[in-house]
Amino acid sequence: MPSNVKTIEWAGNAVRLIDQTLLPTELKVLDCTTLEQVAEAIQRLRVRGAPAIGAAAGFGLALVARRSEAQSVASLLGELEQAQAVLAATRPTAVNLFWALERMMRCAQAQAEGSVQRLKEALLAEAEAIAREDEAANRRMGQYGAELIPDGANVLTHCNAGALATAGYGTALGVIRAAVEAGKKVHVYADETRPLLQGARLTAWEMVQEHIPVTVITDNMAGHLMQQGRIDLALVGADRIAANGDVANKIGTYTVAVLAKHHGLPFYVAAPRSTIDFSLTSGTEIPIEERSPDEVVNFRGVRTAPAGVRVYNPAFDVTPHDLVTAIITEQGVVRPPYTEGLAALEEPQ
Amino acid sequence: MPSNVKTIEWAGNAVRLIDQTLLPTELKVLDCTTLEQVAEAIQRLRVRGAPAIGAAAGFGLALVARRSEAQSVASLLGELEQAQAVLAATRPTAVNLFWALERMMRCAQAQAEGSVQRLKEALLAEAEAIAREDEAANRRMGQYGAELIPDGANVLTHCNAGALATAGYGTALGVIRAAVEAGKKVHVYADETRPLLQGARLTAWEMVQEHIPVTVITDNMAGHLMQQGRIDLALVGADRIAANGDVANKIGTYTVAVLAKHHGLPFYVAAPRSTIDFSLTSGTEIPIEERSPDEVVNFRGVRTAPAGVRVYNPAFDVTPHDLVTAIITEQGVVRPPYTEGLAALEEPQ
Repeated sequence: MPSNVKTIEWAGNAVRLIDQTLLPTELKVLDCTTLEQVAEAIQRLRVRGAPAIGAAAGFGLALVARRSEAQSVASLLGELEQAQAVLAATRPTAVNLFWALERMMRCAQAQAEGSVQRLKEALLAEAEAIAREDEAANRRMGQYGAELIPDGANVLTHCNAGALATAGYGTALGVIRAAVEAGKKVHVYADETRPLLQGARLTAWEMVQEHIPVTVITDNMAGHLMQQGRIDLALVGADRIAANGDVANKIGTYTVAVLAKHHGLPFYVAAPRSTIDFSLTSGTEIPIEERSPDEVVNFRGVRTAPAGVRVYNPAFDVTPHDLVTAIITEQGVVRPPYTEGLAALEEPQ
Repeated sequence: MPSNVKTIEWAGNAVRLIDQTLLPTELKVLDCTTLEQVAEAIQRLRVRGAPAIGAAAGFGLALVARRSEAQSVASLLGELEQAQAVLAATRPTAVNLFWALERMMRCAQAQAEGSVQRLKEALLAEAEAIAREDEAANRRMGQYGAELIPDGANVLTHCNAGALATAGYGTALGVIRAAVEAGKKVHVYADETRPLLQGARLTAWEMVQEHIPVTVITDNMAGHLMQQGRIDLALVGADRIAANGDVANKIGTYTVAVLAKHHGLPFYVAAPRSTIDFSLTSGTEIPIEERSPDEVVNFRGVRTAPAGVRVYNPAFDVTPHDLVTAIITEQGVVRPPYTEGLAALEEPQ
């Protein structure tokens, strides 16, 4: 990433984010000055990636508070609850969204006895903390994960779990960055990740920026590469992890995990503790977002299939925990049995 | 397919073919009047699919003979040998190309004692026979294969192994057509098949034409669908089959086969005997075509990845025979052990 831009940050009077729908051909930042703009940016994937969505939700509530003309704390809390509902309705799968909203609302409620001004300041500080802690967590995750990456490794990744998917540094790509920073040679195979090409557009862009060698492949080439012995391990992010270690992530992740299993390769997931949903005993309970058919059969206005076809467009799939070699968190590497290992992670402050 | 157009046919003075690069948005036939045009059409995938490439090669040599001003049979045979080399250089993987060229040259050499005119007529008749026999083989294949398709089946297919990939009716899609003609309900899941989207563009188009229900998915969704129990079997075509039953087919086929194995689903291959290369003991000997990176990182002129990335673009992969449940041929359904079963197939006249 160019050092002068961040995936998402507070810009005085606005939530500033990179409009990721325009990458890799255009790097443009967008200042969201209303709740509706923030919600639209999340829904349209201008900002995406579970931790980045969480940060966007945090800044979104801080923005609502900042712009509010409420004269009482009670009135402002009411506005925040409405805003929470708007943001919670944007995307159903990534749990970091709900986690961040709840953390922000807890912060707000803790100020119920204080002043409106104090509440506004507390919410902005909390949103800043969510983003700052996310980047710090990713850097720790990188340290732990880098030990799993052999020198000279060919690493397959899917979608984008990089700086663009987080408040900074990245989860899966953070591990790769940390391995490279530790002096290891790493070559990345980036699944292009249909339908929205986050691998080709975003992961490849991040790797090129940092001079980490990257080869883009179509999603259906990964099996062929593994068969040829050209991939050493698979490493992805996560949108939600159930208490038993089942992992929801970008559609196609499950296929990568099955392929890794068939070829005897490690399949690693890198995600902060905020991605774990302890309220769900297994991944079958994770809601899977279905998105517009247009994402599959139109490419920037060009129709790719005839009229009259049905289209199925689930945005995520669930990889059962028995296909996951290890989950890399900011508190260390968790291995099976996951129910015990994940439960032992400490809740952040 | 509309009844007034054919994938490929002889048009008096030209090889007439559907320009498949324009589908599904435009149905346009192209009259190739020179060898170079036929070779370009094969190389650029205006005509594609192993059996259709074979038919194109046959008509291509008939065209060369027709247009030749050679005064002697020996001279014409020399021209044909040069043309054979040009056509053989277009694409390396589909064996039907080489099979058809050799069959045409045998036909030509059999006329070595006759007249130039007689040779020209014989070559056109042979090319017509290759196309006619291909369509007839597909119809027989359909009869045999239809018995493997349960009523109400959800069938996953990859790429296009339909009427557009053959001289008519199709191999894998021919089996689906035959099942539907036998009164069965069939629903097709069409992998869009990156990078060139033959599934979304061509398979979906064929199915819509014939009112067979079809749902387009991105390649990386197939595993998720199998996991949910929404697919009953996988059925694909082939570009070359080794003597041991290893199958080269469009990139991504191997991944479908691994997924089918993991989920305990049948994985069927439909292909005529002309697709079997008995000179190769296993699939590792099959040459895999690598095509331009532009196919992966450009979509009709829109760049999908940043400058500076490497791109890998193998057009095919090889599925080992132990992942293949059965091979459907025009002489019946062959099951393991394939070396014996395939060897028992009779050479066409």
